[in-house]
Amino acid sequence: MVANSERVECFAVDTDLEASPRMPTPDMMATEVHKVAVLQDKTGLRSFRHSLGEVFFPDDPLHRFKNKPFFKKVVLALQYFFPIFDWGAHYNLKLLKSDAISGITIASLAIPQGISYAKLAGLPPIIGLYSSFVPPLIYSVLGSSRDLACGPLSIASLVMGSMLRDEISPEDKVYLEVAFTATFFAGVFQAGLGFLRLGFIVDFLSKPTLTGFMGGAAVVVSLQQLKGLLGIVHFTTKMGIIPVLKSVFDNRKEWQWQAVAMGLSFLVLLLAARHISSTRPKLFWVSAAAPLTSVIISTIISFISRTHEKGISTIGFLPEGVNPSSVSMLHFKGPHSNLALKTGMVTGLLALTEAIAVGRTFASMKNYQIDGNKEMVAVGAMNMAGSCVSCYVTSGGFARSAINFNAGCKTAASNIIMASVVLFTMLLLMPLFHYTPNVILSAIIISAVIGLIDVRGAILLWKVDKFDFVACMSAFLGVLLISVPIGLIISVGISVLKILFHVTRPNITVMGNIPGTNSYRNLAQYKEATRMPSFLILGIESPVYFTNSVYLQERILRWIREEEERITNSKESPLKCIILDMAAVANIDISGIESLKELKRTLERRSLELVLANPVGEVSQKLSHAGTWELFGPECFYMRVEEAIASTSYKI
Amino acid sequence: MVANSERVECFAVDTDLEASPRMPTPDMMATEVHKVAVLQDKTGLRSFRHSLGEVFFPDDPLHRFKNKPFFKKVVLALQYFFPIFDWGAHYNLKLLKSDAISGITIASLAIPQGISYAKLAGLPPIIGLYSSFVPPLIYSVLGSSRDLACGPLSIASLVMGSMLRDEISPEDKVYLEVAFTATFFAGVFQAGLGFLRLGFIVDFLSKPTLTGFMGGAAVVVSLQQLKGLLGIVHFTTKMGIIPVLKSVFDNRKEWQWQAVAMGLSFLVLLLAARHISSTRPKLFWVSAAAPLTSVIISTIISFISRTHEKGISTIGFLPEGVNPSSVSMLHFKGPHSNLALKTGMVTGLLALTEAIAVGRTFASMKNYQIDGNKEMVAVGAMNMAGSCVSCYVTSGGFARSAINFNAGCKTAASNIIMASVVLFTMLLLMPLFHYTPNVILSAIIISAVIGLIDVRGAILLWKVDKFDFVACMSAFLGVLLISVPIGLIISVGISVLKILFHVTRPNITVMGNIPGTNSYRNLAQYKEATRMPSFLILGIESPVYFTNSVYLQERILRWIREEEERITNSKESPLKCIILDMAAVANIDISGIESLKELKRTLERRSLELVLANPVGEVSQKLSHAGTWELFGPECFYMRVEEAIASTSYKI
Repeated sequence: MVANSERVECFAVDTDLEASPRMPTPDMMATEVHKVAVLQDKTGLRSFRHSLGEVFFPDDPLHRFKNKPFFKKVVLALQYFFPIFDWGAHYNLKLLKSDAISGITIASLAIPQGISYAKLAGLPPIIGLYSSFVPPLIYSVLGSSRDLACGPLSIASLVMGSMLRDEISPEDKVYLEVAFTATFFAGVFQAGLGFLRLGFIVDFLSKPTLTGFMGGAAVVVSLQQLKGLLGIVHFTTKMGIIPVLKSVFDNRKEWQWQAVAMGLSFLVLLLAARHISSTRPKLFWVSAAAPLTSVIISTIISFISRTHEKGISTIGFLPEGVNPSSVSMLHFKGPHSNLALKTGMVTGLLALTEAIAVGRTFASMKNYQIDGNKEMVAVGAMNMAGSCVSCYVTSGGFARSAINFNAGCKTAASNIIMASVVLFTMLLLMPLFHYTPNVILSAIIISAVIGLIDVRGAILLWKVDKFDFVACMSAFLGVLLISVPIGLIISVGISVLKILFHVTRPNITVMGNIPGTNSYRNLAQYKEATRMPSFLILGIESPVYFTNSVYLQERILRWIREEEERITNSKESPLKCIILDMAAVANIDISGIESLKELKRTLERRSLELVLANPVGEVSQKLSHAGTWELFGPECFYMRVEEAIASTSYKI
Repeated sequence: MVANSERVECFAVDTDLEASPRMPTPDMMATEVHKVAVLQDKTGLRSFRHSLGEVFFPDDPLHRFKNKPFFKKVVLALQYFFPIFDWGAHYNLKLLKSDAISGITIASLAIPQGISYAKLAGLPPIIGLYSSFVPPLIYSVLGSSRDLACGPLSIASLVMGSMLRDEISPEDKVYLEVAFTATFFAGVFQAGLGFLRLGFIVDFLSKPTLTGFMGGAAVVVSLQQLKGLLGIVHFTTKMGIIPVLKSVFDNRKEWQWQAVAMGLSFLVLLLAARHISSTRPKLFWVSAAAPLTSVIISTIISFISRTHEKGISTIGFLPEGVNPSSVSMLHFKGPHSNLALKTGMVTGLLALTEAIAVGRTFASMKNYQIDGNKEMVAVGAMNMAGSCVSCYVTSGGFARSAINFNAGCKTAASNIIMASVVLFTMLLLMPLFHYTPNVILSAIIISAVIGLIDVRGAILLWKVDKFDFVACMSAFLGVLLISVPIGLIISVGISVLKILFHVTRPNITVMGNIPGTNSYRNLAQYKEATRMPSFLILGIESPVYFTNSVYLQERILRWIREEEERITNSKESPLKCIILDMAAVANIDISGIESLKELKRTLERRSLELVLANPVGEVSQKLSHAGTWELFGPECFYMRVEEAIASTSYKI
């Protein structure tokens, strides 16, 4: 502590020396006092406009048009809105070869997955194939990702199925109409978000809550598939874990050993294929081809052994031909329009979240950027158009995009190839699915959704942040025990609460000098940091808002009380000055300013000085506008903690 | 820029010299590289417990019991739970004199205000007097504020009236029952919040939204009082500005010039009294005595000139005696229990907010502290007990507390004196109110609520923060044009949105060296700051969360792009290293860490170095737990920006 006292004296001498005409030495420079500058460059309205710009146009989309001739601008605009003109201009045979390979690979996955996911949503299997044809074509024109493979998604299918089944039976004709209407609403919602540049809304689904949500959904879906896997006929339509398990064990008599045997063996096969591909990325085609292979083999088995006559249900008749129009099935009025709107928004948001997350992941791997807002418009257009030609909610899925990426796709043309293969199937190969047993679809769904359970991610959350882990588990249990939409609401609610929680109870740290430097750091973090006698340096690690201004004020008084107790016990020199390091206070509002003023007055009555160090741009501006500068006096604001100490120490 | 280049070289030399055994010079010390310490002292669970403690016990309520003998602990606990034992132990005649003067003063305000506010809530006037008797007595035992004067509040009365009238007519007997039940619920809610130490919830009503809300409510109430002021008989029961104005002008024929003349002259008198007291605090008694004086004078006029026979309505018969029991009127089941619950929660929250804000204000003026959670329990007990003896929602009001304070109150005993005066009135003076014209009550209400319109506060908001001003005006217009509860919801919603908004789009600043120091500050704020060639130093002014991690990543890439364009145009040395100053990043979550990792990989591919400077306690801990330390390598973390520059400049 003696060393520190000397240090203070040394600073004091330095500061006195500054008045002398000698050349400043580096050490003197360190204690030269700088005026805290007030951010002045923007008037209130301009700063308001600036922050609106940051919200809606953080990527500055017009920068590419700067200083370009008119014709070039038109071409750039065309390429901006229809990326196909961008990559299409340089397309060549070599690219086509890569895209063809990956397109055929993902088609072999897309066909069985499409049929399975449509069943998951409670829709006729053929709708899944329709949805794998038109939407990918639209995406290839509008989408800016080179790796996204489009089609139905497990999570959106699941949620759509669970929400619609709550009100309508899948056997009802209305079910299909509401599904298409919901798809249309999903598209409008997605495109609207993109168009209004509200893309940041998907960021509100945080990783922990998504991990929990997806895990819960995967368990719920897998349990639902027990119906197919066990061959049960009378099964609950509810999604919760308890009614499903009850239904499974109450109907033990309906279990069919043929179905169980076939389902389990193919499930093992599919999971093994997944495992091989995930450990050795070069063998990506193993997991890509596994579902189609399973379908073919099981169909042959079913056809030869006539298992369908023994009660194992099959897909049955699928109509040949391309997507029929479904415009006449869209109903925006009537008793179910609210349900359609709600389902559309929830599934639309989920589909969007997956597409954007997947798109970003692969874009960063190949070092290009995708534009979130543009992607939203593309996905929205895909669903709006899709809803008119018998497609349900589609988007870019993770599994198929990963296979697309590993198969070496180069552009969105792989989506066109995939769609062509699907078209060929729809036109010519439909009768082949007649004998495909439903149990195989259940196995495909389970093997797909099991990958959504991210145990390692949850463990990492536990390590990094207990609160995030709690959020993750709440979402997981919410989906599992209550319902999928409630689970989603819980997830988002907890994510938002966490932010508010942090803003309500921010960290305050006690700081000390790092020996040998003029820097001040958290005493708890840097063990070598030492307290400055007579000073209490507090770092506030949060914006100061109405939610925490009162807390901060009272917490600072408590820190002072505890410091005074410590000083009394250790018989050090009494506390004289409190320095608030404002470096981490990114913003302050009127309540925060009032609290600072009140703190200043309270401490003045106790003959303690309060000075602020390093108020940043916006904070300095607001303090100045609110007249705090005049109230506190200029000697209470310093650019650096060291300057505050140097200037105050000789006054005391 | 030449000076800067030299500076970098000089740093580089210094850093090389460190290996030599010579004594370090101060300048060398400045560039000595420190290891970034990781906050280690708490395990995950302990840190979770610590943050829960910060949320619920920020004031460390047990600190007063530390190292005290058992008997002392009992006394302290008694004094803690019943503050009357604290101040009562030292009570003397001198304190009693001060308290008696202020108690009588506030009683002269409380009696006419009580009657008026009960009318505002749609309740019989006598309920207002009952509510000015029992609750202040309870507060004087439990309350920790020395200045709070308790009784009915304008804002809570207004909201209760508006919410109940939506469903029940005030003439209906059920109205009174629901009002008492709502009061009981309000008390349970308030005491519950305090007991569960959720006091911070009232902080969510921010000053801007409260300013707007109160202003809107004041306008709505004043408009409602036009009924009494103009002597209109047939008046709308709605609260909105449009139906009220329509009602006023549609019933022009009912306007009574006697009522208008009397009302306006007393209103002018009351406002003049308010003005005198607010400009000269020593004349506080002018505004305190004005309402009672007005009541007395107008009653005499009314009695002499027999205006009540000319159709000017009067208060009429008021029953003599103390509060009757109302336990049998509390109904927790039945058709209106939901309404009672809702009304109770909203009015309870509003009453609490006013009591705590007022209590804190006067406590800070007299330099003592009040405990928010304890205050909540006291106010809650007041309302729970009150609802059983014919009182409606009460709390500590601003106007009467200010008069109490100015009249020189010393302890909560002034509430006892006030209650005694009210008791005396209820027992003996009731017949005197028989001829008091209702118009005078309207004038008292208007003159009271007009003080809630804080135009200066709104102007200050406009100056300091445009967004806060928008929030304030939305609350104001929401109350005025839609309804009081909707206005309240809008207010809270906007306050929360503002926080999320800031967390979603945080500031990033470009930093430069302050000449003559080793500090780096925002270039926009400090005009003298200069860029370091080959370096881009970015300060992130916000915690990095899932809501902003993607934005930050893309925005940083845009800063880099713009910096590279600038460098190309000005032909400076090319960009080589990006330093992120993390001093203001108070927290980071898993999404933020992922984004940092991705940014690192993206920049590596472009041969740009990414280093982090000054990660604070919790951030360093989380980065370490998530394995970022290993991924980035130790040479990517520095304690200070200057060290990062010094260490990196000679590598480049």
